[in-house]
Amino acid sequence: MPCEFTLRRRVEFSETDLAGIMHFSNFFRFMEAAEHAFLRSIGFSVDLRGIAPGLCLPRVHAACDYRAPLRFEDEVEVQLLVARKTTRSLEYLFRFQRCEGKRSHEVARGSLTVVCAKRHPNGRLRAAPLPKVITDRIKVAPKALIDCGSTP
Amino acid sequence: MPCEFTLRRRVEFSETDLAGIMHFSNFFRFMEAAEHAFLRSIGFSVDLRGIAPGLCLPRVHAACDYRAPLRFEDEVEVQLLVARKTTRSLEYLFRFQRCEGKRSHEVARGSLTVVCAKRHPNGRLRAAPLPKVITDRIKVAPKALIDCGSTP
Amino acid sequence: MPCEFTLRRRVEFSETDLAGIMHFSNFFRFMEAAEHAFLRSIGFSVDLRGIAPGLCLPRVHAACDYRAPLRFEDEVEVQLLVARKTTRSLEYLFRFQRCEGKRSHEVARGSLTVVCAKRHPNGRLRAAPLPKVITDRIKVAPKALIDCGSTP
Amino acid sequence: MPCEFTLRRRVEFSETDLAGIMHFSNFFRFMEAAEHAFLRSIGFSVDLRGIAPGLCLPRVHAACDYRAPLRFEDEVEVQLLVARKTTRSLEYLFRFQRCEGKRSHEVARGSLTVVCAKRHPNGRLRAAPLPKVITDRIKVAPKALIDCGSTP
Repeated sequence: MPCEFTLRRRVEFSETDLAGIMHFSNFFRFMEAAEHAFLRSIGFSVDLRGIAPGLCLPRVHAACDYRAPLRFEDEVEVQLLVARKTTRSLEYLFRFQRCEGKRSHEVARGSLTVVCAKRHPNGRLRAAPLPKVITDRIKVAPKALIDCGSTP
Repeated sequence: MPCEFTLRRRVEFSETDLAGIMHFSNFFRFMEAAEHAFLRSIGFSVDLRGIAPGLCLPRVHAACDYRAPLRFEDEVEVQLLVARKTTRSLEYLFRFQRCEGKRSHEVARGSLTVVCAKRHPNGRLRAAPLPKVITDRIKVAPKALIDCGSTP
Repeated sequence: MPCEFTLRRRVEFSETDLAGIMHFSNFFRFMEAAEHAFLRSIGFSVDLRGIAPGLCLPRVHAACDYRAPLRFEDEVEVQLLVARKTTRSLEYLFRFQRCEGKRSHEVARGSLTVVCAKRHPNGRLRAAPLPKVITDRIKVAPKALIDCGSTP
Repeated sequence: MPCEFTLRRRVEFSETDLAGIMHFSNFFRFMEAAEHAFLRSIGFSVDLRGIAPGLCLPRVHAACDYRAPLRFEDEVEVQLLVARKTTRSLEYLFRFQRCEGKRSHEVARGSLTVVCAKRHPNGRLRAAPLPKVITDRIKVAPKALIDCGSTP
């Protein structure tokens, strides 16, 4: 049962800004891309219309700590770890590693907390339990993996 | 009956790229922002769910000619002109003027062609007539206005 | 000496996603837009090339808590508060209020921590003191203002 | 000597809009990503600082014709063809094919015209010849390939 996923991608020109580095908001898009690739890797789409019409997975918290910049054409590995799982929410941690040949350097660390919500006919979102078919396929990463590399 | 609209905005940091200028794809976002502000100015939202559920306005053509760059914090006027109107489509022209005090310099010229489409239950889009309440409120800009400033 | 700024803007079509709401990453772009408008309001550009060549203001931390979604064409007020100021960093808090006529509803709360960095010829960024001309023009918001509306 | 390149990618959540389809401006980002991957495939970066400091490759024209939408998680092939080459400019054509198993459907067709420019100390861009090391590695696609699939 997976608790981890790594997405590799390259920084694109349109993701940089005039400071010559990847715009800080795009780290959140990379986190989300890793999350959705993780769900695909266990057989699901974050677009739940196929398995649970009316449900969606809005974010309630997002955060990122930046240590070093990413630049155009940098290759980066975004490692996702499942940090917490309840019946209604999932918390993911992310580590951004810039790849240089065989070495890699951590450049950022982020987190996303996702809840399950039901879309009501009036457009409002209301909290709902996560589909069990999904949570049954996901486990929380071991503490050692989550703490690994943390500053003491 | 309006045939013209001008949107004024300022280039944001996240809209620039490492070349220090506004990313070329964002000119299309500015055109669309001007289009939607134009529709609001005549009492409509491009989100047609309020007046014509199931209809939407996808783009079938978009183009832009770039003469000079826009930079961070540049103030720009995006002038929209209705260039053509049929029962099923609208064609808009756009002129981008960078504002410097009382003078302005044309930096780009673009166009968008929008059609009306009906969303079928299977998700497909099929061409449909534009809502008459909208086309009745829009007229085509005079040829003189459209040609104005064109290179001969 | 200002400690606060409010930016008003409207959610654009290109800022929404297929869930029909503003993509969560765009809240960070709104925060940055408010930060840059705040700096302009006191006479500065975040592009420091004019007053301090070689300096830039990278983000080291960004976070957002989402309470309710923003939708296309929603009008939103982004209130910036200076929460902390050191010789090398500024911490901003942000409150997102969706405007409905004369009422407004808080939909999100965020923060950005910005440091000053010097670009070295090798491209590396190294921490540097913030230009005094800027910090002299900014003060920290009173605690009452920062706590206002916080959940107890 | 290459005249063609194909980039395969998947539509991300943040690239969709409330109409449930990929925002039309993102087709231009996909074209640019294909262009830059093409240049990498022949040993170059569009960031010319390594081989020709002061030169950059701004776009002077961009266009796209949309036939069908792309949706979240659609896999798409973006085929780049070199359509024209002068000492100062390159014109690319792009075909977007949505992949469904072994079949694919053309959903859009675009073009980009890129010129070479020299950045002057005052920030202005002025036309300049393309680096010969690059143009020597690129050839124009055969007419049959360019016309292939065109509507008669």
